[in-house]
Amino acid sequence: MARTTPRPTSRVRSRSWWGWGWADAHPDDAECLAMGALLPGTLARPLPLPRVRDLGIGAPAVAPPPSLAHLVTSDPEDRAAHAMGKAYRDVVRALRGRRPGRVPDLVARPVDEEGVADLLDWAGERQVAVVPYGGGSSVTGGVEYRGDAHRAVLSLDLTAMGRVLEVDTEGRAARIQAGALGPGLENQLRPHGLTLRHFPQSFEFSTLGGWLATRAGGHYATGRTHIDDFVQALRVVTPVGTSSSWRLPASGAGPSPDRLFLGSEGALGVITEAWVRLQERPRHKASAAVAFADFDAALGAVRALAQSDLSPANCRLLDAGEAALSGAAHDGCAVLVLGFESAEEPVADRLARAVALARSYGGRPDGTDRTREGGAGGDAVGAWRSAFLRMPYLRDGLARVGAVVETFETAATWDRIPGLIDAVRTEVGEAARKATGHPATVNCRLTHVYPDGAAPYFTVLAAGRPGDEVAVWDELKAVASEVLYRHRATITHHHAVGRDHRPGYDRQRPEPFALALRAAKRALDPHGILNPGVLVD
Amino acid sequence: MARTTPRPTSRVRSRSWWGWGWADAHPDDAECLAMGALLPGTLARPLPLPRVRDLGIGAPAVAPPPSLAHLVTSDPEDRAAHAMGKAYRDVVRALRGRRPGRVPDLVARPVDEEGVADLLDWAGERQVAVVPYGGGSSVTGGVEYRGDAHRAVLSLDLTAMGRVLEVDTEGRAARIQAGALGPGLENQLRPHGLTLRHFPQSFEFSTLGGWLATRAGGHYATGRTHIDDFVQALRVVTPVGTSSSWRLPASGAGPSPDRLFLGSEGALGVITEAWVRLQERPRHKASAAVAFADFDAALGAVRALAQSDLSPANCRLLDAGEAALSGAAHDGCAVLVLGFESAEEPVADRLARAVALARSYGGRPDGTDRTREGGAGGDAVGAWRSAFLRMPYLRDGLARVGAVVETFETAATWDRIPGLIDAVRTEVGEAARKATGHPATVNCRLTHVYPDGAAPYFTVLAAGRPGDEVAVWDELKAVASEVLYRHRATITHHHAVGRDHRPGYDRQRPEPFALALRAAKRALDPHGILNPGVLVD
Repeated sequence: MARTTPRPTSRVRSRSWWGWGWADAHPDDAECLAMGALLPGTLARPLPLPRVRDLGIGAPAVAPPPSLAHLVTSDPEDRAAHAMGKAYRDVVRALRGRRPGRVPDLVARPVDEEGVADLLDWAGERQVAVVPYGGGSSVTGGVEYRGDAHRAVLSLDLTAMGRVLEVDTEGRAARIQAGALGPGLENQLRPHGLTLRHFPQSFEFSTLGGWLATRAGGHYATGRTHIDDFVQALRVVTPVGTSSSWRLPASGAGPSPDRLFLGSEGALGVITEAWVRLQERPRHKASAAVAFADFDAALGAVRALAQSDLSPANCRLLDAGEAALSGAAHDGCAVLVLGFESAEEPVADRLARAVALARSYGGRPDGTDRTREGGAGGDAVGAWRSAFLRMPYLRDGLARVGAVVETFETAATWDRIPGLIDAVRTEVGEAARKATGHPATVNCRLTHVYPDGAAPYFTVLAAGRPGDEVAVWDELKAVASEVLYRHRATITHHHAVGRDHRPGYDRQRPEPFALALRAAKRALDPHGILNPGVLVD
Repeated sequence: MARTTPRPTSRVRSRSWWGWGWADAHPDDAECLAMGALLPGTLARPLPLPRVRDLGIGAPAVAPPPSLAHLVTSDPEDRAAHAMGKAYRDVVRALRGRRPGRVPDLVARPVDEEGVADLLDWAGERQVAVVPYGGGSSVTGGVEYRGDAHRAVLSLDLTAMGRVLEVDTEGRAARIQAGALGPGLENQLRPHGLTLRHFPQSFEFSTLGGWLATRAGGHYATGRTHIDDFVQALRVVTPVGTSSSWRLPASGAGPSPDRLFLGSEGALGVITEAWVRLQERPRHKASAAVAFADFDAALGAVRALAQSDLSPANCRLLDAGEAALSGAAHDGCAVLVLGFESAEEPVADRLARAVALARSYGGRPDGTDRTREGGAGGDAVGAWRSAFLRMPYLRDGLARVGAVVETFETAATWDRIPGLIDAVRTEVGEAARKATGHPATVNCRLTHVYPDGAAPYFTVLAAGRPGDEVAVWDELKAVASEVLYRHRATITHHHAVGRDHRPGYDRQRPEPFALALRAAKRALDPHGILNPGVLVD
């Protein structure tokens, strides 16, 4: 896994401007076709890789002031790479040569907080929209300016501010700049024997600031995994001044200032650094897979595990389709992937108790209980892990053969989970069939589980209307959002609202809170330049 | 303990209008004098119990509209009981016959949400300030109107809305009205085998709504204890409409709506009900006390315990003075009170590991390791527990002999804890000596511990300026607040801001967040009637 292997310095890898991750990690044409062959209605020839020059990017509408010019570029390649996130919708638009809402006029890379503040001042004076940008991994339109109410658009790329500034080993905390990407952040913490231990699927290509601004969910199924819980203090540059909260383990002094900025998606200010809570690196690990012929019984087992005091680090339930897709099982069974970790004590006993509990719900352990460190073997756990990290690349490969891939996630209380999953399978599957004329695949896994509910993650695969992929995707998103709304399941558990989830978010958000948020936005961003269109208008 | 013993129905106990808790539980004159004898400078004769009629409460400045009259009273006794909270400052003012800021003109007890909304509508039209009131246990001036900008003051007592409305046993959650007092709430949950397990010191005399509005800290030292973490959804009546968040185990959809209302202290709306997360009732308990000759070594042990995966339910460190005061130790040692609880597994092993860890820091177990259920024995743990629950009554007894008792609490990261505790002992002790002319006692205990810090709780005892108790208290509060500010320790960890902590809160709160909060207040409370003076002006 990239996150534990520092990149060799002898080899410079470049990021894909239009698709996920590293350009050299994308599936080649043959692999794209092989995947396409599994789905009816895909293309016989993969779409060619898109070229920036075909976007016809013109001169920027504004020039930066001389004092800030050294932080700013108008290079078309850079602007194209900052124009959209990495949703399927973004990727397929690039492949189809369709322009995003608006390519940013300029990309700025400030190296300190003063640079951020100066850029905001300039943008406010000139009515330039500012779109904060971390790793650019948004899958909800979070970094794409849409509309034309601003004179120009500046993409504010924070990745030149990626340092760990201070480490408090005694108190297990660090002050870290918001632009730190996952691997760089962990590499800087490793010499101190500590870890943030926050590993979203986007880990390699997302930043601390992005995690904070979108309330990212980490890799772990239970316990501390959401970035929210790791925050000790925040610094946020707003157009009216810098907000700096005190470094505190806890406080009851009024509503939490940090919690207003967590999830604010760049609409209230630019997060520039945070004190975050760290952990000792786990030394003991054990994992196992348990198969269930009956998905509902598996749900019961997961709920019992989530309500126990076992605290599995991993407790991912894959339905039969998801298990087959990831190679974890091919016999029509659902698979529960269990993992335990501890920095202090062996975890084999907890794993054994968890497996016994799963067995009491009809689960069948696959005999691969392992207590060795990491490592992805040929078994169900390893297969799932490899597929998990490779998935976004495969999605882009599927897009190249005209498949529509929609992934969305949510959370709901246990009483709603079975009905919700059924409804999504039925209604989104049917909508995909209608939209494409071919049967669609709808898979589900639970990514996070709680004593009071769970977070299901759905993958929809369909093909059959080449050229209309965006329209099909938009139809599926609308149907999916409607099902979530009807079941009172959140429009997003950890992918954020961005622009694609705004309709669902607006329906979900209590109206008095919307009033408060709009008022806060006006107070902090009087010129309305911060990530316009996100959260509030 | 009162919280596990339902009140006998044959006996109606009445609340003290001027002091803590039950009127019949107050120390008598002899006990007051006995306590006073331990402190130089106290009175030779206890102050008499205050009488409502001496307050000279006049006719209310407004009458409620006929349609709401059945919910409202202007009875002087009721109004007096709602005029202040239960801070030492409040108690001593009552004893000295000094009027609070303003006695509310009316006390309303709505029985449903519609009644709350109607009262807010009426108050908004008439410029009547509305002070939400739960159990009235505020020790920071949270329920006392001060000033004269409003035509009249209405105390909005929620305790007629105290029902558990729904219980989801499968998902371990319940929908509960905000006016439920601790014992009533737990009594309604008990038949379901579930518990909220939130036991602040004020448990008997505080409500769910009060806990939510002030971000109460529970009894437990680690893990889930803050009310914030138990909230699944909130309903809040504001002057511009009712905010109702969805019942969700987690969500990443924008900044958390609930977190804006948690800690809003009645300034943004009236919390009327919440879905809260419940737990199974613990079946296994074990506790022990460990003595430390060296307080700093004890701090190290506590930090190690907080950073371990042992999760003690109780991990309270009492300094030598606090240990002596509570009867936990009289040999000049600090005492660490450890407790473990689980609904699933025996906890003796975890207790043994914790004791061993404490021993490695020089701790000396007192040999009273117990694994039986509850019960306060004659040992250190039991002594501490009894003293803990009796403490507020004793404080009122001390007030009757002219002693000044100031208790305040805070939280800070581990790097600041030793210096902070030293500074409070030295500077507040010296200020008390100067203010009273007598040596003062300053004790400290840690009430909550975190991997990254701790919450120290201080008790200051002094006497010597009879009649000037309020002035002495105000001086001590100012000095204490200054020390906290200098050490960047929060002005409150779980007592809330109220009115007494406003100066400290205003200095601590990031200015952009203050702007956002003021804007939110204007949006939700356009007539400025909600608990004026709390959090924002």
